[in-house]
This record gives sequence, structure tokens and C-alpha cells, in this order.
Amino acid sequence: MPYDLDRLDTPFVSVDLGIVEQNIAQMHQRATSHGLKVRPHTKTHKQPFLAQLQYDAGSQSLTVAKLDEAEIMLEAGFDNLLIAYPLMGDAKAHRLANLMARGLKPTVSIDSLASMRTLMKAAAMSDRSIDVLVEVDTGFHRCGLTGTPVLELAQAIHDASGLNLAGLMSFAGHISGKTDPSLIRQIIQDDDAQLGSYAATLRQHHLPVDTLSVGGTTLSHYMQVLEHATEIRPGIYIFNDMGIVSGGSVDVSRCAARIWATVVSRPSPDRAVLDAGSKMLSTDGPLAGSYGFIVEHPNWSIPRISEEHAVVVFEDSDGPDIGERVSIVPNHVCTVMNLQQRVIGIRNNQVVASLPILARGGTR
Amino acid sequence: MPYDLDRLDTPFVSVDLGIVEQNIAQMHQRATSHGLKVRPHTKTHKQPFLAQLQYDAGSQSLTVAKLDEAEIMLEAGFDNLLIAYPLMGDAKAHRLANLMARGLKPTVSIDSLASMRTLMKAAAMSDRSIDVLVEVDTGFHRCGLTGTPVLELAQAIHDASGLNLAGLMSFAGHISGKTDPSLIRQIIQDDDAQLGSYAATLRQHHLPVDTLSVGGTTLSHYMQVLEHATEIRPGIYIFNDMGIVSGGSVDVSRCAARIWATVVSRPSPDRAVLDAGSKMLSTDGPLAGSYGFIVEHPNWSIPRISEEHAVVVFEDSDGPDIGERVSIVPNHVCTVMNLQQRVIGIRNNQVVASLPILARGGTR
Repeated sequence: MPYDLDRLDTPFVSVDLGIVEQNIAQMHQRATSHGLKVRPHTKTHKQPFLAQLQYDAGSQSLTVAKLDEAEIMLEAGFDNLLIAYPLMGDAKAHRLANLMARGLKPTVSIDSLASMRTLMKAAAMSDRSIDVLVEVDTGFHRCGLTGTPVLELAQAIHDASGLNLAGLMSFAGHISGKTDPSLIRQIIQDDDAQLGSYAATLRQHHLPVDTLSVGGTTLSHYMQVLEHATEIRPGIYIFNDMGIVSGGSVDVSRCAARIWATVVSRPSPDRAVLDAGSKMLSTDGPLAGSYGFIVEHPNWSIPRISEEHAVVVFEDSDGPDIGERVSIVPNHVCTVMNLQQRVIGIRNNQVVASLPILARGGTR
Repeated sequence: MPYDLDRLDTPFVSVDLGIVEQNIAQMHQRATSHGLKVRPHTKTHKQPFLAQLQYDAGSQSLTVAKLDEAEIMLEAGFDNLLIAYPLMGDAKAHRLANLMARGLKPTVSIDSLASMRTLMKAAAMSDRSIDVLVEVDTGFHRCGLTGTPVLELAQAIHDASGLNLAGLMSFAGHISGKTDPSLIRQIIQDDDAQLGSYAATLRQHHLPVDTLSVGGTTLSHYMQVLEHATEIRPGIYIFNDMGIVSGGSVDVSRCAARIWATVVSRPSPDRAVLDAGSKMLSTDGPLAGSYGFIVEHPNWSIPRISEEHAVVVFEDSDGPDIGERVSIVPNHVCTVMNLQQRVIGIRNNQVVASLPILARGGTR
């Protein structure tokens, strides 16, 4: 039976399932209209329940960041997964082979011959084949190759036993923190153009390039500029957060996840303390000088947090009442989800579900 | 049977139990020689197994940051706990009363009449009494009162039914980030002197002040300057981390916890990527421009992390080999522990235990 949020003790995280459904529907509908597949990145929510909503919206493949997440999603029945991470080493080969023996049909992105050999081992052990994307660095400078090595690795994968060259992948993570729409658009066009250029080179060498996969929620709001990409891998879009809001793609009303906290201390006239610190909000950010956006009081901010405390400052003359409850839209929802045992599913501000974060990480 | 660390797939967190035992023994022996009690803050490790080592070293009371932690520690048999947090509201009163009915003998630090009323409710519901510390702000400007309100709250607690005024508490968190020993010493002397001054005022008003509780690992390495404090609440000392190392109290050899990671990508000559990001290391810091200290290569650093990637830069001409394993001392070990399902206990680099982080937080 639905019940009121007030019954729950703070701090806790709520997820508005109505907003989640709207976010999923809009993203997948727009992608379809632009001829793009959506491979939602499940690292954001880490929950099979929400993955199912993305699957139901038409995504026949999901993205994960590591084998831990793949294990949880496979257990829940999602057997078509893009592991968007360069798996490396014998332990990973054994784990991947084990998942393949249990039915996983993996696509893996890699950027080295060493990772290619890891995948070849997994393929040989499981006697199944693996689809492989070559990761390309289009300016974020994390993983990914540039120049001739892209072609060389693609050729090697194409020639390797047990592996199918499926295409190319990029992640334009350097959009993060940008707020100028024309600059964001330019980064996305450049990301897409680089993938297109590499793809043309590969095709000249008679290599198959079915998939050109690009990442990120902000990028996914600029679908109209994508000329070469065949699929998008948004993660945060299911909830949104202040990082996405600051990029200008959505407003706060589209943010589905909030941390609920109580004013537990008013030690001085100019300061209040909430019972949610870095172990609820994470230290990602701050954005606009605040570790999150306080929905009920947009002119309050959180300039400082410690593990279980958020220090709130405000412009009101009165300020917070001790005992008052507020809700906070996080700066980076992915790390917030990873901090929770579970989150509280709500509809119309009524509690309707308790959702365990089954793929929550850390030395498993 | 002990086995080699190499058998474990990365990323994972190891805890050297030999270093842990040494850290505990030294801190507790020195405190005893200075006539100080130690109430170890268990928010750092969140594990009854390690709390037992602190209890065995002579701590008859432990510190927790919230009721979630108190529940786990009580379940493991630790019934004398300082809840160093201003509990606030009816839900907390009910939860505290429930724990008291199960045997908890709590001390709670508060800084408002509202929190006092919460404790009075818990005491009335459980028909047991609660020891109470008044939290004083000595310069960190988080929770804690200053000036006359300290005396007023102490008097109110003394007069309240079900509550015993036990003393005063402070947390000189503004030491954090300081590296100049004379400045650190000055902050600690000032913290101690302020507590002493408030205590004198309370005693003039015939109020009992048995406990003067001060916090923090760096502070606890300056015991010799404490003239008024009766107890210390160090947390990080059990492991140590780069935050404590940067404060000058210990060196890296005394750091017991490390994140193990593998070089999974060498996309360019000047860059490598490790398979441990903010979901293993947290985003706390960075210190000296790095999200952690790489033990095997002190001249490498981690200027950038994302959720599952750490970007490594280095001065070596060759740099990391793909597949190489390294271990990282974290900047802030408390948030790292809170990210783990469990950690791996080692002795002499052999695995001897798997330690679940039972009091790991987040919407429980």
C-alpha cells in the first residue's frame, strides 16, 4: 500500500518513478525518430528493476561498466550487454567466459592488443564469440586510441579467432562541466565526425563497422547533430542530476532522484546542518558552490560537507527551522546511487517501492 | 589458509592487520600514558571485527556517527557507545529507545533544545537514562554552540528528566588540510583551552563535567598539549591515510588500507588508466594533485578520476606496463571503506580474512 514519505527516517534517497518513466520514454522515442539505438548505461541506477523499464522502452542491449554489473544484470535475464570497459587479464577472461557459459552475449570495448588477448581467451574458454568495439579517444583523453592504431587494432580484432569486429566507440566526457550550448554542440559534432572518419578508413580496408557508439546524457540531447553515430549510451538521463541541468538539456523538474535530509542543528544564525553528508551526496562537484540543489529552498546552498553533515547557508532572514525536512537533487546521481543499499520508489509523493541497488560496487 | 593477493581480481581493498594492530596499540598506549581515554570512532572502519581490536586495547566505549552504525555495533555486543551526532526528531527517538531496550547504554552529543527533547522522549519510552554531551564549536563551524548557549543547554540537560549531563564535546575539524605543525598545535591548544574554559563555567554553576571529549587522529598525535581533555575520539588512526600523512603525524608505512588496481589501458605515451575510479577511491581530495598515493611508483600520480577509471600520469620514460598491478593509499580512508562490500584482511601480503563492512551506509 502506498504511504507518505514522512514515515521514513532521514537520510534516504527517493526516486520518482513517474519522472523516470517520462525520461525513458522521451529519450527512446526521440532516438527512434533519429534512427538511433539506445544502449542505456546501467552504471547510473545499478538495478535490474529500472533496467527492465529501459528494455521495455525498446533497448535490446544495455551497457555496463564492469563485470560485477554484468553479473547482476545477467542474473536478472539481460543477456545482451555492452561491457564498455577494457577488460584486461586472466581473471577477467575467466569471469567473462563464465558469464558467457551462463548465456551472456557480450560486446566489449577495448583499446589494446592486451585486452584483445584477454577477450580471445574468454572466447576460447567458452567456445563462443565476442563482439568487439574499438574505443576511440575523441578528446576526453581517458581510454581510447587515436590515429593509425585504431585501424591496426580493428584489423587485429577482425583477424582474431573468436572475436567479431562490431565497430567503434567513443565517450565525449569533456562535455562535462561545459555550459555553453554552442561549445557543447561543437564537441559533439567533432566526436561524431571523428568516429565517422575512422569508420570510413576501416571500411576502405574492408573491415565491418556496424556500430558507432557514442556516450552520455548531454550528448544524447543533441541527437539532431549526429550524422554517423548509430547508437547512444546515455546513463544519467533516467534520473537526471544537477550536472545535466547545468549543461542546459533539462530543468530540475525532470530530476527523479532526491536525497531527503533533516535540519538537525542551527548552531548559529547564519548556519544550519543537514543529516546528509558525503556518504549520501558524494563529494562529486560542487556545482555553483553547492553539493546539491535544495528543492524547497533554491536560495539555500551547501558549500561544505563532511561524512554525515551538510553545512547549509542561506539568504532568508529567518533560515531553516530545526527539524525541517528538505530534499536535495544531487550533482552526480551515479555516485549517489552507488552509496545506497536501496532507494525508495515514489509516485505522487507516495512510497510505492523499495529498490535495492543490487550492483552497488566495492570489493565483491 | 593464507594465500597470495595475486589470486584476487582487481579492484579490491586490502587492510594489513599487522599495521592495524600496531596503530591501535601505539595510540592506546600513548593515550593511557597521558591519562586519556580513547573512544575510537568506528565510522572509519564500520566493522565489528576491527571494533573488537579497539575494545581489546582498552576502549570500553566506542564512537559512532549515526544510529545505523550503533545498531550494527550493538548487535555485535558493543553496548557502550557515544553517538557523536545531534539526533533529532521522533523517528530517531523511537529508534534510540528501541536500541536502549536491547541493551544500549548511549552517550549522545547535542547542540539544541530540540535534540534534547528527542533524547528525553527516547529516555521516557525506554525508561532508561541517557548520558549527554553538549557539543561546542571551537572553530570548525559545523555543529556546536559557542558562548552562553553552552551553559544554557548544559543547565537544561541537567534539569531534564531521563538525561545525565556528562560533559562537553568538540571536533577541531579545521585541522584538516593544515600541514604546518605549529599551526596544528595552536588549533589543538585552542580547542582544548576552549573546552577547559566552558567546563570551568559549568562547574561554577555546579554542573557535572566528567567528560571533555576531543576528536580526530591528527589531534590525537598531539596528546602532550592537551591539558583539559579527558578523552580522544580518533577514527582514521586505525588505518591512516594520505590526509593524515599530509598532516605530518605518520608516514606512508603506517597506512594499513590500500586499493589494488590494474593498468588496463595505455592509450598514449604519457597516460595510463587504472581500473579503480571514484567508486573505489571516492572523490575526496585530491591531495598534492592526486586522488591517492601509488605505493609502488611514488612519482606517478592520479590527477583525474571518473567512476571506474583513474588516469595516471608519470615521469618515468617508460611508464606503466599494461597489466601491471599497483596499490593506492587513499586520501580519505573513511569514504573508501564506506564504498566497499568487504575488504581483504592481509598479513605479510598473504590473504587471511574477508571483512564485511557491515555498517556501510545509505538508505537502510
